[in-house]
Amino acid sequence: MTRDAPNFEEIRRILADQPGPEMEAVTEVVARQATLTKPAGALGRLEELAEWLAGWQGRATPRVERPRIAVFAGAHGVAARGVSAFPSEVNRQMMANFTGGGAAINQLATMLDADLRVYELDLDTPTGDIVDGPAMSEERTARALAYGMMAAEPGIDVLCLGEMGIGNTTAAAALAAALFGGTARDWVGPGTGVAGAALERKVATVDAALARHRAAIGRRDPLELLATLGGEEFAAIAGAIVAARRGRIPVLLDGYACTVAAAVLQVLDRRALAHCRVAHLSAEPAHRRLCEALGQTPLLDLGLRLGEASGAALAVPLLKAAAACLNGMATFTEAGVSSHHA
Amino acid sequence: MTRDAPNFEEIRRILADQPGPEMEAVTEVVARQATLTKPAGALGRLEELAEWLAGWQGRATPRVERPRIAVFAGAHGVAARGVSAFPSEVNRQMMANFTGGGAAINQLATMLDADLRVYELDLDTPTGDIVDGPAMSEERTARALAYGMMAAEPGIDVLCLGEMGIGNTTAAAALAAALFGGTARDWVGPGTGVAGAALERKVATVDAALARHRAAIGRRDPLELLATLGGEEFAAIAGAIVAARRGRIPVLLDGYACTVAAAVLQVLDRRALAHCRVAHLSAEPAHRRLCEALGQTPLLDLGLRLGEASGAALAVPLLKAAAACLNGMATFTEAGVSSHHA
Repeated sequence: MTRDAPNFEEIRRILADQPGPEMEAVTEVVARQATLTKPAGALGRLEELAEWLAGWQGRATPRVERPRIAVFAGAHGVAARGVSAFPSEVNRQMMANFTGGGAAINQLATMLDADLRVYELDLDTPTGDIVDGPAMSEERTARALAYGMMAAEPGIDVLCLGEMGIGNTTAAAALAAALFGGTARDWVGPGTGVAGAALERKVATVDAALARHRAAIGRRDPLELLATLGGEEFAAIAGAIVAARRGRIPVLLDGYACTVAAAVLQVLDRRALAHCRVAHLSAEPAHRRLCEALGQTPLLDLGLRLGEASGAALAVPLLKAAAACLNGMATFTEAGVSSHHA
Repeated sequence: MTRDAPNFEEIRRILADQPGPEMEAVTEVVARQATLTKPAGALGRLEELAEWLAGWQGRATPRVERPRIAVFAGAHGVAARGVSAFPSEVNRQMMANFTGGGAAINQLATMLDADLRVYELDLDTPTGDIVDGPAMSEERTARALAYGMMAAEPGIDVLCLGEMGIGNTTAAAALAAALFGGTARDWVGPGTGVAGAALERKVATVDAALARHRAAIGRRDPLELLATLGGEEFAAIAGAIVAARRGRIPVLLDGYACTVAAAVLQVLDRRALAHCRVAHLSAEPAHRRLCEALGQTPLLDLGLRLGEASGAALAVPLLKAAAACLNGMATFTEAGVSSHHA
């Protein structure tokens, strides 16, 4: 966390001045797809993904050769309330597991030949308990945002974002309710696997946090809500998304907590996630509601609820396939295939 | 087509004596998954796929290192009725495109490092027009079944099945209606992209074929219906599925025509597709109804309607991921991660 952190005003200025897609590349892809040896539109979402990749990479021959998987890990004060099936020690233990190559995302990164980076935030200094006060100061939030921006390095052609943080689906539920309205019960789910009394405790915790921060919620400032109810990994993900836009790197978003972090930006500016796709529909029930609120249709629906960017990583082959078909297929003329009845 | 073709009686005997999954391997996988460093069940369908792979490969450490993609191409007499957006010459032209590496499936096979085989049936001798009579004799059907069996060679660890054949969604609709009931309109869709008057012609063609073969449909013999309303690529796919079962090779099924071919076997014997998964939900509307009839939940839903095994190929990375996570992840004990609150 060495870079000078932008404050919230600077983040707002950056969002107000985001680049759009390169429309010339999109137009070229649309025209090329109509000439390839397949019925028009027969590759379905792969065709839409090819256009999307081209627009945001700014090249009519998109590439998915250097994917990066960025996992942000944060510690949450609210975890002390027993809202997770796992204790907070697991944060550090899982960092060691990532380093040792034993986590699910390690296997997926190896399979994809992707560059896996695990970004550790202040794991030894959990955020404030959101039932008692704000999770973070503006300064801490801005520092985490700036840290996340470092994940979007030049040369990467797609960025998969994910998180790890015991207690963070509790923070995600509170933040989602603050951003989109509704009660705790609308946004709380089992997370790592709580049920029964523990799930009720999680609902009550989110309700208490929402009551405690009613004034902040009323001000409807997404960055203030990120600081108040989120966590460092949420801010880092938002920072990575903003930096990826400027770096012309399309982004794959993982599940519930990751999508809530991204949602902060879309509430700030409705175009802010145009270069992002929600990679999969999480088994966390509120993820569906969240994706609908954002106008996103997840690419995969496999009942995953792991985090660690695992769902985002699983969508990388779809992007590779989209680019491979677009770039490699023969046209009707090249292949001497009749494009219709004579 | 050199191998001696089994007749329908032999196919029935083979189906009555199919091997089941290796339950010892499944049990071992279930036990191991509970020890891996993730919340229980958090990998969703990947966990189910790992168990399925293990059971049908007969090994607790399933492998997805040598996938084969088998595309069967057949010619249909009914195509002369103008039921497709493309003329029948495209069958031969697409064979050349496959050989030249220009089709979508070529790009996907290269991306997956999969062994792509295109199996050409009697492209110069289309099947009979199903409106006038049966598509094939029992002998021709059995020969195509036997040809398809050759695709399930030892050493392959997953088999992706697909097809190419102008007019074959018309045959598929007729065969599906004969197997499961309903009218032509329940089972006919745009295929390669017909609409308006051409789509109505396709519906009328299927209705006419169903009326012509009312007696055969009444006999409810799936193999007779395959011969009467199907086509050579349908029979070959059925043969490949039967042979894969005996060879302990799990199978990924592509879209509508491929799934109808597979359905013939499940109507013959309800356990016949236990080693198969429908890889994707096709954009062809009746595929959903068909998958429901078979009790299959497709792995992907990407709006594809290309055929060529393209949707089956796209699911291979999911199987690789399932195997990689199962085989490569650390256990809670190995990683020193707390598996629950102390």
